[in-house]
Amino acid sequence: MDVAIRNTLALTMRDGGLAPIDDATIGIEDGEIAAVGPTGEVDGDADRVIDGRGTLTLPGLVNAHAHTGLTLLRGGAQDVPEIEWMNEALGPLSEAATAADVIAGARLGVLEAVLSGVTTVGEYAANVDRLVEEVYLPMGVRVAAAETINAVDAERADHGPNEAYPLEDAAAEEGLERNEALFDGFADETLVSCLYGPQALDMVPRWLLEEIRDRAAEHDRGVHMHVAQGDRERRQIEARYGEGETTVSVLDDVGLVSDRLLAAHIHGATAAERERLAEAGVRMAANPCSIAAIDGIVPPIVEYREYGGAVGIGTDQAPGPGGHDFLRELRTAALLAKTDRTDPTAFPAWEALRVATIEGARALGIDDRVGSLEVGKRADVVVCDLEHPSVAPTVSKPLRTAIPNLVYGANAGIVKHVFVEGRRIVDEGEPVTADADQIVSDAQRRAERTFGEAADEWLAAGSELAARTDR
Amino acid sequence: MDVAIRNTLALTMRDGGLAPIDDATIGIEDGEIAAVGPTGEVDGDADRVIDGRGTLTLPGLVNAHAHTGLTLLRGGAQDVPEIEWMNEALGPLSEAATAADVIAGARLGVLEAVLSGVTTVGEYAANVDRLVEEVYLPMGVRVAAAETINAVDAERADHGPNEAYPLEDAAAEEGLERNEALFDGFADETLVSCLYGPQALDMVPRWLLEEIRDRAAEHDRGVHMHVAQGDRERRQIEARYGEGETTVSVLDDVGLVSDRLLAAHIHGATAAERERLAEAGVRMAANPCSIAAIDGIVPPIVEYREYGGAVGIGTDQAPGPGGHDFLRELRTAALLAKTDRTDPTAFPAWEALRVATIEGARALGIDDRVGSLEVGKRADVVVCDLEHPSVAPTVSKPLRTAIPNLVYGANAGIVKHVFVEGRRIVDEGEPVTADADQIVSDAQRRAERTFGEAADEWLAAGSELAARTDR
Repeated sequence: MDVAIRNTLALTMRDGGLAPIDDATIGIEDGEIAAVGPTGEVDGDADRVIDGRGTLTLPGLVNAHAHTGLTLLRGGAQDVPEIEWMNEALGPLSEAATAADVIAGARLGVLEAVLSGVTTVGEYAANVDRLVEEVYLPMGVRVAAAETINAVDAERADHGPNEAYPLEDAAAEEGLERNEALFDGFADETLVSCLYGPQALDMVPRWLLEEIRDRAAEHDRGVHMHVAQGDRERRQIEARYGEGETTVSVLDDVGLVSDRLLAAHIHGATAAERERLAEAGVRMAANPCSIAAIDGIVPPIVEYREYGGAVGIGTDQAPGPGGHDFLRELRTAALLAKTDRTDPTAFPAWEALRVATIEGARALGIDDRVGSLEVGKRADVVVCDLEHPSVAPTVSKPLRTAIPNLVYGANAGIVKHVFVEGRRIVDEGEPVTADADQIVSDAQRRAERTFGEAADEWLAAGSELAARTDR
Repeated sequence: MDVAIRNTLALTMRDGGLAPIDDATIGIEDGEIAAVGPTGEVDGDADRVIDGRGTLTLPGLVNAHAHTGLTLLRGGAQDVPEIEWMNEALGPLSEAATAADVIAGARLGVLEAVLSGVTTVGEYAANVDRLVEEVYLPMGVRVAAAETINAVDAERADHGPNEAYPLEDAAAEEGLERNEALFDGFADETLVSCLYGPQALDMVPRWLLEEIRDRAAEHDRGVHMHVAQGDRERRQIEARYGEGETTVSVLDDVGLVSDRLLAAHIHGATAAERERLAEAGVRMAANPCSIAAIDGIVPPIVEYREYGGAVGIGTDQAPGPGGHDFLRELRTAALLAKTDRTDPTAFPAWEALRVATIEGARALGIDDRVGSLEVGKRADVVVCDLEHPSVAPTVSKPLRTAIPNLVYGANAGIVKHVFVEGRRIVDEGEPVTADADQIVSDAQRRAERTFGEAADEWLAAGSELAARTDR
């Protein structure tokens, strides 16, 4: 074997639970998990043996929904009313960001994610192929890439939320072509899976969704889409499709409400609609910190799971919630769920860890390859230091306190080794496949230019944040 | 001067805002802040000069309420109904914990706090003098210590929540004596301030509170007390003081509703009562992660500040919320406030940073000494790395993104240097006054014994957690 992690506490995520093995050995060979079991029963000979005493090993964490390319704009849009966030705060900065800024930001965002134990990102971006080629593949991080298709004619769209945005068929066509090229371009990359990425029902024409429905069925592909994001979208759908119509009713009519769909957010849907989505097999990408920061809303993770729906968790984007630290996202998800339900038993630690791994992989449609520690799966594995001040001490009786401590106590400092397809991308807490100093200094240099260029327009847009820059 | 931090972004917390200075020098001499100002205007000669480029410097963070002695029991009580948390989950573990366990746990908890930028802890414990002597003074961390006075006769208290717990006058007297000895014993320690610590209205006799009221007035001392913690307390107060009486009404009658009182929690009070407390100058110690984790409740931080009340934030205890990382506490406080109000503008970053520093110091009654960067104040200072992947990049125009990034982005990895009274207790992210490995291994050894001893009783207590140890 190439690598053996010996004498670790393994959370395997098999059989619907965490399926822990107290003194486990995990073997990795040719990018696959070659052995998992009690140390006494598993051959632990390997080119590299990791002493796993005092560690916990689990499948790599899956970030189900992220726009990492916006990381350069961190700090430019938060603490503002929801209606201001997109256009008055983030907008002027996004417009000033170059294609190279997006790549530099994605490198930083993916670095932050990886350092918190993430091995897969559900990336969502326009020209996502560049992020795959220039960020994910060089850094050795698995990606489920969706190419954003957005047909809103930005030049003519400023009519207020009650009038339907004008859409351009040509933009939709171009987007669809980019999306097809994505599938073709990365068909042979084992680290890459692809999804269609129509941005949201209010931002694309109906014919595009029908076309995507047919192509997805023909090629057995998934669709990653923002669904029912709130009031602005609701008003757009009524303006476009008629009174009483909603995102879910239209998607259902189109035939996209199926297990091919990964729906981000869905907090703007009714409970009945969410139940319908769950029963149809639609997977949910919840973004607790982002939706809390930007909308002041707790995403319906617990409710969706009660309907039997599959849920993954994502960090969305850095401006607003602050970044791509997935351990922090997970803990916040649990605390938000508890306060939303006034129930401290809501979304307990063991459920959070399944959502962070195998269920997140299911959300992205790659649970046949990753998300659990099982022989034959790709070796996406995280080794966590249980002797870190944020999780210690841990005991195994009368309960394994490492499990709650990982969710409620851990900060990113516990992440010791991260493997993706058997390749070590973090070693003793240090990134191997990325030059952190270079990534940060490049982001810094670019951010100064971009914020500088956008400054006047950002101030003129007049968000609540712009009124308080003397703070 | 002893130390000069040059070319840093300083958040001074003067004049009701953050009062930032973009290119600042901060001088430290004889444990005091000797200079603060633009680098060009301040003498920066010092025995040790810290290059502050790429850093943010702010007053040391103030944790207003913590029971760090429970850190050893982390992981033993969470994800259970509120009614089970204290007695069924934490109880059997607390009973098995020795005095040495409490000290070992406190060392770990204070280490975790310090590594997240904390310089002052509002510690709340029985025999808190031991924690001061064996943890805070050796580690060089400022402490506002309250000696817990609890007169509940534990042997006879198991009558259910509707019957008043029997109280023992002798226990109250002993507690009061310990509390007086605390004031006497540490009168000359500049790192230590002391408060009376009657645990809660339902746990002490009325005469004790009257005695504390008189002594506090005579000696100009503060009182740190859990106030209106929820349903169990409410029922106890009615059983003891009569129908219609509440914690706030009784405390008001006793004469303790004044600016001497630091009230932890208060989520169980009515809005009118909270307004009364705020107007009377009562300071609030809010514990967002703890109350979210244990009760599924968001503490009324925003509301209390709207009434003009002073608020500090605390981490409470590790079992439940997970630990004493204060940066994480701060971010969670902001996100919980936003969802509680369905308002993304609630508790913005700049308010969170004031609460974490000068207002927290005010809550503990030590804002004359710490909480802001001003000449003559004690030099409790934190230098944060802005080139860390969790906060980078940062710009100064059109807004200082370091401010939101510190609250929403930062993890504890950004904490570079921590000074308390001018003494460096963290240097380049490493603890100076504590042996982290020794603290963790001691905690580990002790936790194994303590959980082991408590295991049968913990399982027999039958919390929801005990039913799921196979996870």
